[in-house]
Amino acid sequence: MKVLIVGSGGVGTIAALALSTNGGAEVTLVVRSDYDHVVKHGYRISSTKYGEISGFRPAHVAPSVQQAAENGPFDYIVVTTKNIPDGPSPCEEIIRPAVTKESTIVLIQNGVGIEGPMITEFPNNIVLSGVSHIGSTNIDCHVVNKGQDRLFLGVFPNPNVDAALAEQKVETFILLYQVPGVNLITRDPDVRQTRWEKLVYNAVMNTTTTIVDLDVNRCQITGANEALFEPAMHELTAIAASEGVTIGTDLHHKFKHIGDGLFYTPSMLVDSRKKQLLELEVILGNPLRIAKKNGIHTPVLSTLYLLLVMVQFRIKEQKGMVQIDPKDYQGDSDKYPEIFKAKQK
Amino acid sequence: MKVLIVGSGGVGTIAALALSTNGGAEVTLVVRSDYDHVVKHGYRISSTKYGEISGFRPAHVAPSVQQAAENGPFDYIVVTTKNIPDGPSPCEEIIRPAVTKESTIVLIQNGVGIEGPMITEFPNNIVLSGVSHIGSTNIDCHVVNKGQDRLFLGVFPNPNVDAALAEQKVETFILLYQVPGVNLITRDPDVRQTRWEKLVYNAVMNTTTTIVDLDVNRCQITGANEALFEPAMHELTAIAASEGVTIGTDLHHKFKHIGDGLFYTPSMLVDSRKKQLLELEVILGNPLRIAKKNGIHTPVLSTLYLLLVMVQFRIKEQKGMVQIDPKDYQGDSDKYPEIFKAKQK
Repeated sequence: MKVLIVGSGGVGTIAALALSTNGGAEVTLVVRSDYDHVVKHGYRISSTKYGEISGFRPAHVAPSVQQAAENGPFDYIVVTTKNIPDGPSPCEEIIRPAVTKESTIVLIQNGVGIEGPMITEFPNNIVLSGVSHIGSTNIDCHVVNKGQDRLFLGVFPNPNVDAALAEQKVETFILLYQVPGVNLITRDPDVRQTRWEKLVYNAVMNTTTTIVDLDVNRCQITGANEALFEPAMHELTAIAASEGVTIGTDLHHKFKHIGDGLFYTPSMLVDSRKKQLLELEVILGNPLRIAKKNGIHTPVLSTLYLLLVMVQFRIKEQKGMVQIDPKDYQGDSDKYPEIFKAKQK
Repeated sequence: MKVLIVGSGGVGTIAALALSTNGGAEVTLVVRSDYDHVVKHGYRISSTKYGEISGFRPAHVAPSVQQAAENGPFDYIVVTTKNIPDGPSPCEEIIRPAVTKESTIVLIQNGVGIEGPMITEFPNNIVLSGVSHIGSTNIDCHVVNKGQDRLFLGVFPNPNVDAALAEQKVETFILLYQVPGVNLITRDPDVRQTRWEKLVYNAVMNTTTTIVDLDVNRCQITGANEALFEPAMHELTAIAASEGVTIGTDLHHKFKHIGDGLFYTPSMLVDSRKKQLLELEVILGNPLRIAKKNGIHTPVLSTLYLLLVMVQFRIKEQKGMVQIDPKDYQGDSDKYPEIFKAKQK
């Protein structure tokens, strides 16, 4: 069996480690900016469960998906990159060079609706949902993993593929990934439930902390639990309910208190502080499009979303991904979005 | 007649210039950080209406209100500082050393409800409302004033004072301030109307641009006019209506387009970029307290407000005005606001 992992952050590197430790598959990891370092020195891993490891490298390391494809074809393509459909490299474009008829695509990423573009692009490939609860960061090739690597793996429904075969792909991946006593990978019987539950945290805490540039506990010091987090979670839960996913208010309580005392910086805030693009559309844009479709009133989340669209725009301009020439924007400001759209083409 | 001006920003320096040019009053200007420079060199003024002036100084310059008081007693105390009731120096504390029984207090400041703390502290003094439409900045003692100095002057209702006398104080101040053909100071027959109208801009544009750190036109490029500014203005107008102040939607249109093509940075955004405290409570906090009292639903403005409370907290921590020791915040995060309050005392 051959597995390609695209995305070498905290989740992808540990996935490479898990699969390599298990030994059932030949692993290729795509590493972009750190390629030279990883080829020479490998990763340093500091994990409470996997242990302290230096010089970790999977069987193959490749600087691009294109070059990784030479080690294929792959039975599984595991995507652990950030998911930014409004950025220059949507995930389906990133993995395209490696996708073959037989590839099962595993999206270990946050958000809802992430399977949509994948299934549109690769309608006959099986696409699996991975929801990771891990707590792992990769900073300059030092991977620090404090939580247990827990992965919930299920099938994104797709009428074009054989459902029984898809379930078999889940079982096989579990067998390839599991390291008994170390990680915990389980079949996810309800992909939607799992994703919407994680979203209750991400759509509220990641977004708010990013907008105001403060960690979770500092927001809570100003009274955010009652004033903002609870009403926003309530709206998110209502959207989930409109899709038939029931989320209890006990989960609101859990998520408001899961970081008590930790002064935790959610991943989106980490990204904005590094001036990197935000996973805004899969975490908040897609849920709000569902809300609109189902007629759910979401004034708080919609306001957070609109503000984050502006923050995303700011980051894109800072990165030079969009250019604004004031000369182009001198007339009726109602027309600025159209002008911008035309100029970006 | 003696006039004290407290606050030497773009509005205060031009007020000193207007009163000095008119010549009817002896002007004392409080200048804090730039005191030495102003004593030696005065201000450079670049004004489309007042002209190009170098070395401007009013009759007296004082480094503090305490020292300015030696030039008193004052007939008028004009307050042109930022109004930050949640900061370390509320306006009534700032001017206290200069206030006498006879002082008429003139608040040339943004926001609603600003007269409340003044009248509470000085219940028998006449307090006037000044709403300035000027377009003036003071950067390092160079005052650039592009718009005409238009000032609307009226009376804040106060049952403790003689209404006719208060109107007379308005008329007298107009006579002292006016410079025919240069500025335009007029009696404001409806202080509340004028203040709520200006608030339609400030409560929406100042707040949004500050939260996302983008100028007005850049927000509009992302679609803010329709998606955020209009709904937020609608809420603000509803609050005004609940107080008996009618604002037409033509004003929404005017304010959405008043800055077309200017890539304007509202004053609150200027403050946040300088890491200075925001005039949040008078511009948004007070209107929302009125909304709550009158049962007006304001989900968008309330969300903006809660986010700005967090931004204000961030600025206070950056300035060293609040200290957070994580050791103090280890238990139930619902209790963090109480802990914070207790620690700050």
